Amino acid sequence: MAAPTQVRLRRTVSTNRVVHELEVERREKSSHADKPCHQQTDSLFSSTSGFSNYRGLVNLCIVLLALSNGRVALENIIKYGLLVNPMYWVRLVVFQGPSDWPCAVLLAAVNIFLVFALFIEKLLAKKSISETAGRYIQTINLFLVLCLPAALVLYIHPNPMFSSSTLAVYTIVFLKLISYVTVNKWCREYSQSKKYKRERQKSMSSLTGRENGSMDSENKYVQYPDNLNLKDLYYFAFAPTLCYELNFPRSARIRKRFLIKRLVEMVILSQVLLGLVQQWMFPTINNSMKPFHNSNYPFMLERLLKLAIPNHILWLIFFYWFFHSCLNVVAELLRFGDREFYKDWWNAESINAFWNTWNIPVHRWARRHLYSPMMKSGYGKMASSVIVFIVSAFFHEYLVSVPLRMFRVWAFMGMLGQVPFAILTSRFLNGHFSNMALWLSLIIGQPLATLMYVHDYYVLNHLHADVMPPTA
Amino acid sequence: MAAPTQVRLRRTVSTNRVVHELEVERREKSSHADKPCHQQTDSLFSSTSGFSNYRGLVNLCIVLLALSNGRVALENIIKYGLLVNPMYWVRLVVFQGPSDWPCAVLLAAVNIFLVFALFIEKLLAKKSISETAGRYIQTINLFLVLCLPAALVLYIHPNPMFSSSTLAVYTIVFLKLISYVTVNKWCREYSQSKKYKRERQKSMSSLTGRENGSMDSENKYVQYPDNLNLKDLYYFAFAPTLCYELNFPRSARIRKRFLIKRLVEMVILSQVLLGLVQQWMFPTINNSMKPFHNSNYPFMLERLLKLAIPNHILWLIFFYWFFHSCLNVVAELLRFGDREFYKDWWNAESINAFWNTWNIPVHRWARRHLYSPMMKSGYGKMASSVIVFIVSAFFHEYLVSVPLRMFRVWAFMGMLGQVPFAILTSRFLNGHFSNMALWLSLIIGQPLATLMYVHDYYVLNHLHADVMPPTA
Repeated sequence: MAAPTQVRLRRTVSTNRVVHELEVERREKSSHADKPCHQQTDSLFSSTSGFSNYRGLVNLCIVLLALSNGRVALENIIKYGLLVNPMYWVRLVVFQGPSDWPCAVLLAAVNIFLVFALFIEKLLAKKSISETAGRYIQTINLFLVLCLPAALVLYIHPNPMFSSSTLAVYTIVFLKLISYVTVNKWCREYSQSKKYKRERQKSMSSLTGRENGSMDSENKYVQYPDNLNLKDLYYFAFAPTLCYELNFPRSARIRKRFLIKRLVEMVILSQVLLGLVQQWMFPTINNSMKPFHNSNYPFMLERLLKLAIPNHILWLIFFYWFFHSCLNVVAELLRFGDREFYKDWWNAESINAFWNTWNIPVHRWARRHLYSPMMKSGYGKMASSVIVFIVSAFFHEYLVSVPLRMFRVWAFMGMLGQVPFAILTSRFLNGHFSNMALWLSLIIGQPLATLMYVHDYYVLNHLHADVMPPTA
Repeated sequence: MAAPTQVRLRRTVSTNRVVHELEVERREKSSHADKPCHQQTDSLFSSTSGFSNYRGLVNLCIVLLALSNGRVALENIIKYGLLVNPMYWVRLVVFQGPSDWPCAVLLAAVNIFLVFALFIEKLLAKKSISETAGRYIQTINLFLVLCLPAALVLYIHPNPMFSSSTLAVYTIVFLKLISYVTVNKWCREYSQSKKYKRERQKSMSSLTGRENGSMDSENKYVQYPDNLNLKDLYYFAFAPTLCYELNFPRSARIRKRFLIKRLVEMVILSQVLLGLVQQWMFPTINNSMKPFHNSNYPFMLERLLKLAIPNHILWLIFFYWFFHSCLNVVAELLRFGDREFYKDWWNAESINAFWNTWNIPVHRWARRHLYSPMMKSGYGKMASSVIVFIVSAFFHEYLVSVPLRMFRVWAFMGMLGQVPFAILTSRFLNGHFSNMALWLSLIIGQPLATLMYVHDYYVLNHLHADVMPPTA
């Protein structure tokens, strides 16, 4: 790209010099009595002008965006009045029916699985049970973490919103426990390896020539199996990471101003999110049901686009709220040092780059416990990536289909559909255009999948309700 | 701005180095058995991270803008169907009532004023009439150029669209004739000055030592009064400039590819403009009449914002169509060399900068024939600028009020309102923010004035029509 631009610029410059010389000649030879004010010049939009500063148009885009969404918001208020009602959510949580209690019970039960995993690890460290037996027991424990709540949710069918968050907690615990078990196994393997024994000998011999203070600072770092205790386990359970290690980086102190700022963001943004959902999402989704049910395609597309923009703005606010405000509050309280919860995914120029940067805890877990082990076992890059995508798609489906009790594959397809999209965009687009394609897929993909589920849920439950005789 | 950022960056870098050293220590002292994957890092959104690359968000803005306006366009089509009908405009031009013929007659009559001005200039050059008499006659001629068509339009009241364009042509001729008369006066003054006589003597004496060829090349440039002929006058009349000079810069040849590209743009964009007016502007304006008449303020604001965006997009297309496509076509056909019809007004960071860059032909005329003479006569910068604004406001009003036969001062106020706005923004905002304020004033100001006129026109004519008995 750089070379032709330079050539063109050089040509423009040399053309400009010729033009300038002609101009000087013209000015010199004609009299100045008419005070001439014209010069041989190209228009800025002509490619020959070499001009390329359109920075102001970015500001235009921002202003237009603010205005057009301001207008839509105003239209919404005129049409529906103020729908924001924080009490709605309070009522939803406090006055939940008895069918929602299972979620609270399930959330408390998660501790059993955690403590059980620690218990087995302790037995393994003391060599009270064999490695094989330990592996079987831990696998069964992990299996139960994933399946028991799903079975309960499917059987009792509580409010989808609560059961979805309960399942999310269980998924996080599942991923954390896999990491916990794996890292402890690595530590046992290491302590049995020859290298470890050699190092231990060396450190023993060097200790004779050292002072006690140095000895202390070395002991500051936890060694296996001293990490196998409740305090360490619960620190990891609450820490904003899915990857276990024995010595997490710790920040020096809790920065009070930072903590307060993040807490304020957490409270305000959560209210903004709930308000926008009530005012903007609910009416739009409700209005979408009819055209979707009648398969009125232009109207469906209009509804999809109308939903896409609030949905995307909600997603952006949610991203900031969860990955910056919430995780930083937790990390600050726990003095957890590693705050890299996200990278600059907004500049990503490929689907791959996006998935590698937007959710760093999950990305790190997938690389450490799925991708790298697969690569070491001899699978290719492509196969390992696809497996990571499939596992990720499975969990997206798990968190949506189970609470809604609908086994559509919209979320699964949405995740897997990214693979051909990634290949297409990387082949035909680059730079800013592939970044735009990425944004487009984010803006359109999510609400499309959402509408699909909402539509199916509506058809399943509300059409059914219409057939039923009124109960009042 | 640069200094604190640098300090912060330096601090961040040095903090990062300390953090990095601690990290290395931690890694060295703890065993590597657990394959640690966390590092002490700040989140990117934290000010301490020193990160500032949000380029991808610009792409998001562009995508969101395209989507939200695409949605509005789709909603429009669903609501109104396809209203675009090129035949409407053809019918409007061909089957105009007899009341519209005055416009065609007026357009033909413009030649009389042009030729008369040339005739007087010739008399002046031959000294057949005195300078004072000449000045009076030319002033009367100019006065008629401005007032005769206005009087006719007010009396006969043809279709406002046609009379407005006729008055625009007359305004252009008025400005061009002022420049023509003034420059010819400068030339006469110069030829009577001593300097000219000295130069003439010098060139005569130097000619004896030169060849004939050099003599020819010097004669290539027209000298006063050889410029006083019909060909020169009509070249100036059609040239895309309002400032006269004896020797315009000329391009070497007509570039056929460039000409064809601009012609294609001219045709396509004019169709796009007319189509958007029919599909987008007419329904929105019609829908605005009721809330404006009932003074329903939230709804009025919603309508204003709904009108603002298509209006601005139309204005942007119009700008490109007129100032780049049309003027370049004319210039290319006339081999007119100076293509600087606009500068980079989109980057303007003040109202002043905007008015100095967006319409270069008018800006140049105002500087050469209004601002500079006033400055030379001893008026201050401020007074001269305000006078330029008032004259400009007068012509905006002239082009709107006379064809509509309504003497509201919305356009005049809109132009003059820019002066306090310019002072306010330059005091409180700078850089990108003042650029955004400028965009905002462009986006909101124009449709506000448009709605005011349309509303008043509607109240005057249509409410009146309702009172009248039906004629069919």
